[in-house]
Amino acid sequence: MKCFIKYGKTCEFPIENLPYGVFSTRNDETRNIGVAIGDQILNLQEIAHLFNGPNLLHHQSVFKQPTLNSFMGLEPSAWKEARETIQKLLLADNPVLQNNAELRTRAFVPQSNAIMHLPATIGDYTDFYSSLHHATNVGIMFRGKDNALMPNWKYLPVGYHGRASSVIVSGTPITRPQGQTLPIEGAEPVFGPCKLMDFELEMAFFVGGAPTKLGEPININDAHNHIFGFSLMNDWSARDIQKWEYIPLGPFTAKNLGTTISPWVVTALALEPFVVDNFPQDPTPFPYLQHNDKFNFDIQLQVDITPKNCNIPTTVSRSNYRYLYWTAKQQLAHHTITGCNVNPGDLIASGTISGDSSDSFGSMLELSWKGTKPLTLSDGTQRKFLQDGDTVTMKAFCETDSYRIGFGNCIGTLLPAKNAM
Amino acid sequence: MKCFIKYGKTCEFPIENLPYGVFSTRNDETRNIGVAIGDQILNLQEIAHLFNGPNLLHHQSVFKQPTLNSFMGLEPSAWKEARETIQKLLLADNPVLQNNAELRTRAFVPQSNAIMHLPATIGDYTDFYSSLHHATNVGIMFRGKDNALMPNWKYLPVGYHGRASSVIVSGTPITRPQGQTLPIEGAEPVFGPCKLMDFELEMAFFVGGAPTKLGEPININDAHNHIFGFSLMNDWSARDIQKWEYIPLGPFTAKNLGTTISPWVVTALALEPFVVDNFPQDPTPFPYLQHNDKFNFDIQLQVDITPKNCNIPTTVSRSNYRYLYWTAKQQLAHHTITGCNVNPGDLIASGTISGDSSDSFGSMLELSWKGTKPLTLSDGTQRKFLQDGDTVTMKAFCETDSYRIGFGNCIGTLLPAKNAM
Ligand SMILES: [Ca+2]
Ligand SMILES: [Ca+2]
Ligand SMILES: [Mg+2]
Ligand SMILES: [Mg+2]
Ligand code: NI
Repeated sequence: MKCFIKYGKTCEFPIENLPYGVFSTRNDETRNIGVAIGDQILNLQEIAHLFNGPNLLHHQSVFKQPTLNSFMGLEPSAWKEARETIQKLLLADNPVLQNNAELRTRAFVPQSNAIMHLPATIGDYTDFYSSLHHATNVGIMFRGKDNALMPNWKYLPVGYHGRASSVIVSGTPITRPQGQTLPIEGAEPVFGPCKLMDFELEMAFFVGGAPTKLGEPININDAHNHIFGFSLMNDWSARDIQKWEYIPLGPFTAKNLGTTISPWVVTALALEPFVVDNFPQDPTPFPYLQHNDKFNFDIQLQVDITPKNCNIPTTVSRSNYRYLYWTAKQQLAHHTITGCNVNPGDLIASGTISGDSSDSFGSMLELSWKGTKPLTLSDGTQRKFLQDGDTVTMKAFCETDSYRIGFGNCIGTLLPAKNAM
Repeated sequence: MKCFIKYGKTCEFPIENLPYGVFSTRNDETRNIGVAIGDQILNLQEIAHLFNGPNLLHHQSVFKQPTLNSFMGLEPSAWKEARETIQKLLLADNPVLQNNAELRTRAFVPQSNAIMHLPATIGDYTDFYSSLHHATNVGIMFRGKDNALMPNWKYLPVGYHGRASSVIVSGTPITRPQGQTLPIEGAEPVFGPCKLMDFELEMAFFVGGAPTKLGEPININDAHNHIFGFSLMNDWSARDIQKWEYIPLGPFTAKNLGTTISPWVVTALALEPFVVDNFPQDPTPFPYLQHNDKFNFDIQLQVDITPKNCNIPTTVSRSNYRYLYWTAKQQLAHHTITGCNVNPGDLIASGTISGDSSDSFGSMLELSWKGTKPLTLSDGTQRKFLQDGDTVTMKAFCETDSYRIGFGNCIGTLLPAKNAM
């Protein structure tokens, strides 16, 4: 497929990708919905009138909103039609947009001029724990090899409700938090800056479709109709605070200090060519969690750390979305099995994605094995956990021989703790 | 204080209360903000132009919204001015509203004609676990007397993020959920309808004031400026599902099946006359959790169960908000200590409120002591947990010699499980 916007073979945003985001510019703080193409953003506000197919003709207003919630709230047939319409408009042999100089000037914004925002108003954010290797690693570290996996782990996708208000877009800095920790088991807790600051390499999907009703679980065979698209996520974690607070009700202030997502939402449609076998599951899940179609994806993931005053990033992890044990469909079916309702724009994260080799782990906790095996960065400094000034850059992409699709980096810099209160 | 609307001495909504809610009517589905007075609702949309004080003159539009979020988002000085304005307009010797027949007709709606809705769009919902007796009871049942309280419990207000989308207004029925449970320890889990359905007697406050910034904790001495008012809450809980799923990340599908709140939000201002000593705390909390002012309230609580086909409610618990160990100010300071931002309309619940006597426990789990001591209802039937068709009615009120203020009942009926999937 040839696009009239030019880009190279390794560009994250070819015509096969077309991820959605929300942007403003330095000159105009209005938030618009855009699609990344090459090094440009196609402003859908300006071409809303060109969505003339049967599913969108009466819904062009969804492209004039400051968030993607309304568009996400349409049916998959509308998402498909939008993708096909945009793809067609961008084709090298299509004059409609290409040769309309006035419209073209209005409709394209260089990514370098754009300020990206959260793609949607996130009503609720949920975090799963669906990587077998991650759950096993954490289990071994905290409970020993024999009790590594909790008895429930292979029967249901373990997850918990997170904090929606503190989900932020890539580029937003994170302040090292202060909180309570228990440095010496059995002694008194202390208050002060977190000493074990960590990232978690995750991916998250945005819920789509009409709001579901309370008391009506999403059937596993309908789940894909409620999965709009995926972003890359860094679930920042204060390990020492987490360890002291999390029993018995789960992580709380160790996580609600900020959760970063990539600016672009890559649609499930764009990921279709990268479908791979689901992770083998034993025992066989309960029927409400069974599906026969493949809903796993070959998405390569990478985490870089760049220390302050150093411009050489060090790649500390290479992982892959396909390592997840539970699929997004299973996560959604389980999430709603007792009747929980979901809304378009809800964000549902995978949990830390670790592979089975030690260079594919998705957190410093695992990479440094609880601080016992420090990593050496390219500037010669060592890391057990994150240091002030460290920039964490996550990348995700899918590749064929002819193109690559990416999510846009998920970046955050860790600022020093503020003065104690 | 004498009001021109007539009501009796035990009315929940005297002129000293003035709780806020959102209502529509059978004839008009527009959602308006109203204040309960006697058996009427004062429609603030109709009298918005009468809020002429310095803090509201330029914010009259907050009373024309379909939710309370904008009003909650103003400063405490505006909440106080609103209360004083409404109180003055309702005084028996004030002719402005009383003698304006046309306005009066438009401005008052009988509560019996109103359909109540959620008072606010709830961005995030958090549930604490702040009753010492409840945490101790649960601890004894699950871990024995010696390890009843977790080591962190008296150092920080334990809490977790809940599901905002499934918070519902009083009167909404709840369907008995299906899910996974582990009936026999060490055996295989099973799937089916919850067998240990429970209520949790809680109160919750709505966050007010301007949105706070990520990375900026709320100082304990500023916390009251972010506490708008309180509702009564039933945190429905599927105990058997909870027990199987909650390790290690906390309750999830056992709770997100629905959380019922009372239709009315009683302001912190209306509760001032009912302030009592804070619960004694030992050890002394960290400085970020210390405050010297009283922020505990004498709010009497009651739970009734009414079986299907029986119209005689049985009161199964009488408790009191004052039994909480951690104050709402401490909850908010802790919630934000690592930098979590909060928004007006966020809902923050107390956790189950149990007193120290066995008839003051706030859940069936405790009242029936894990099912070992069934309760007998007035129709002669017994309850270990809830049965299909049971209606749970929670009530809350504060009393002086001369008046009573209430929250409106928090009601829900448990419907049978749907056919298995
Ligand atoms: Ca996580
Ligand atoms: Ca609760
Ligand atoms: Mg929410
Ligand atoms: Mg939320
Ligand atoms: Ni339509």
